[in-house]
Amino acid sequence: MKTITLALFGTLAVATLATATDPLPSWNDTAPKKAIIAFVEKVTKEGSPDFIPAPERIATFDNDGTLWAEQPVYSQLLFAVDRVKALAPRHPEWENKEPFASLFKGDLQRALAGGEKSIAEIVMVTHAGMTTTEFEQIVKDWIATARHPVTKRPYTEMVYQPMLELLDYLRANGFKTFIVSGGGIEFMRPWTEKVYGIPPDQVIGSSIKTKYETRDGKPMLVRLADLDFIDDKAGKPIGINSHIGRRPIAAFGNSDGDRQMLEWTQAGGGARLMMLVHHDDARREWAYGPESKIGAFSDALMSEAKTRGWTVVSMKKDWREVFPVGKE
Amino acid sequence: MKTITLALFGTLAVATLATATDPLPSWNDTAPKKAIIAFVEKVTKEGSPDFIPAPERIATFDNDGTLWAEQPVYSQLLFAVDRVKALAPRHPEWENKEPFASLFKGDLQRALAGGEKSIAEIVMVTHAGMTTTEFEQIVKDWIATARHPVTKRPYTEMVYQPMLELLDYLRANGFKTFIVSGGGIEFMRPWTEKVYGIPPDQVIGSSIKTKYETRDGKPMLVRLADLDFIDDKAGKPIGINSHIGRRPIAAFGNSDGDRQMLEWTQAGGGARLMMLVHHDDARREWAYGPESKIGAFSDALMSEAKTRGWTVVSMKKDWREVFPVGKE
Repeated sequence: MKTITLALFGTLAVATLATATDPLPSWNDTAPKKAIIAFVEKVTKEGSPDFIPAPERIATFDNDGTLWAEQPVYSQLLFAVDRVKALAPRHPEWENKEPFASLFKGDLQRALAGGEKSIAEIVMVTHAGMTTTEFEQIVKDWIATARHPVTKRPYTEMVYQPMLELLDYLRANGFKTFIVSGGGIEFMRPWTEKVYGIPPDQVIGSSIKTKYETRDGKPMLVRLADLDFIDDKAGKPIGINSHIGRRPIAAFGNSDGDRQMLEWTQAGGGARLMMLVHHDDARREWAYGPESKIGAFSDALMSEAKTRGWTVVSMKKDWREVFPVGKE
Repeated sequence: MKTITLALFGTLAVATLATATDPLPSWNDTAPKKAIIAFVEKVTKEGSPDFIPAPERIATFDNDGTLWAEQPVYSQLLFAVDRVKALAPRHPEWENKEPFASLFKGDLQRALAGGEKSIAEIVMVTHAGMTTTEFEQIVKDWIATARHPVTKRPYTEMVYQPMLELLDYLRANGFKTFIVSGGGIEFMRPWTEKVYGIPPDQVIGSSIKTKYETRDGKPMLVRLADLDFIDDKAGKPIGINSHIGRRPIAAFGNSDGDRQMLEWTQAGGGARLMMLVHHDDARREWAYGPESKIGAFSDALMSEAKTRGWTVVSMKKDWREVFPVGKE
């Protein structure tokens, strides 16, 4: 009798606890939320055929468009534009020189008309030539004060509440969470720990080379105008291998740049979760797809997702909230 | 009265606990052990002016000569020699070609007479041309069976017991421990978690490039005969910045290759611990110094250690045990 009573109370207690602590309150009770919970429960259940030991529970997240907004243009590019303006007084020669001249006129489209060459030029003059310590401070100062051009919220509030909950939920279940982004590694690290709970050593991104120097007996790392690594598309599995040295068991992205990361994740043996956020919510965020210049989600990717059984998250249907509430 | 009794018992209990759980039993009670404990106590004591929050407690360790033995020659080179022999049947042309011909005759010195070019040739034919998954298995198989040429112990037992205790002690105090080695990153990762408790993503080393490919629909990373990064000397701070993105507060090395890592560590603000293991124990391990071709500890380094207040550990005087006991 005592055993039965205890068992009953035990069941009740567990049920109450589960209700009281829905780990993903900003997700609707649709397929993606169910897929996440089913996956986490099976890989963490000891004795289950799908059990995966904690050290192997690696989850990787793209950043732009997956953890925070990437419209109307990548935040890092807006950071670079702000830096160009801040540096302008020291560079009078930029006044009549593209892509800078158009930037000063606020014509971002014309400034970027030169394509990758223009972008590389803007990135290098704003991201290189200082020490790593100086650059870290520049990013910290910018992220503390800059505002999103459309919503006027700080960029650190342009993050997706459902994904913050997902990061917490995975970590509470023994996962180690990593960012694997095409964005600059040193542009993300100064704020990812505070915003996402992801420490700098778990951030992987694109990088430029650095050089070790000693000035007045003080060692420093100087950022060079020399590309080191592009952490996008096929670069993502390479970056994962280089930084993590272990294949993820779960990967989250939102665009064509994440395809290889998801393929690489799925190709490992055992239980896997691959998920893509689809931006189809013009009212609460943005709706964009195969034709977008930023974060394109091509028809080929959608087709691959279906064939391979990847979960596509409809921002409109599957997310109860998009951005953190109570901060607006 | 009750308070006094409790206080007395409390003191006794703490004293007993401290004796019962000496975190560094293989260290003699000399200056280095005292320096380690004093450092850990002050950076972990909340409210202390030297307190450092747990996420910033980064400790980096060189591997060869700091965590495991590097004499009579780097273990990874002996791994490469074993691989050359295993691959020989597929390469009849090696029979009369240096450096391979000398290797087959067991004349390592002559094989390496060509200097870096010979070493690079041996490394590339043994470390490139396969997938990352295949290479991982090759290393796992080798480390499970290979024996140290002098002691005949498995390489995984040629590790320093005092350093294993130090790693555990730091982690128990909220430190995150990293390897920062000139050795190959993918040569270390398959066994560092088991041997040192350091997971693959906390291992930094030298690397060759990889390429993402799909074969029969299966994605893979192929190791290329193309050097990516040398994680030695000035490369160590660069590797630390690239992988950790945060400056260490403690760094441990044993040779000239670790100088910049210790300088970089010390140049951060706040409490710091820099330590060098000096191999002066010919009876229990090896004694070698400024003239050694492997792991040279130059007079300039010794002089810098004194000037900058780095702790030099005498293996002979400061270590009670060198290798794990009970496994021989």
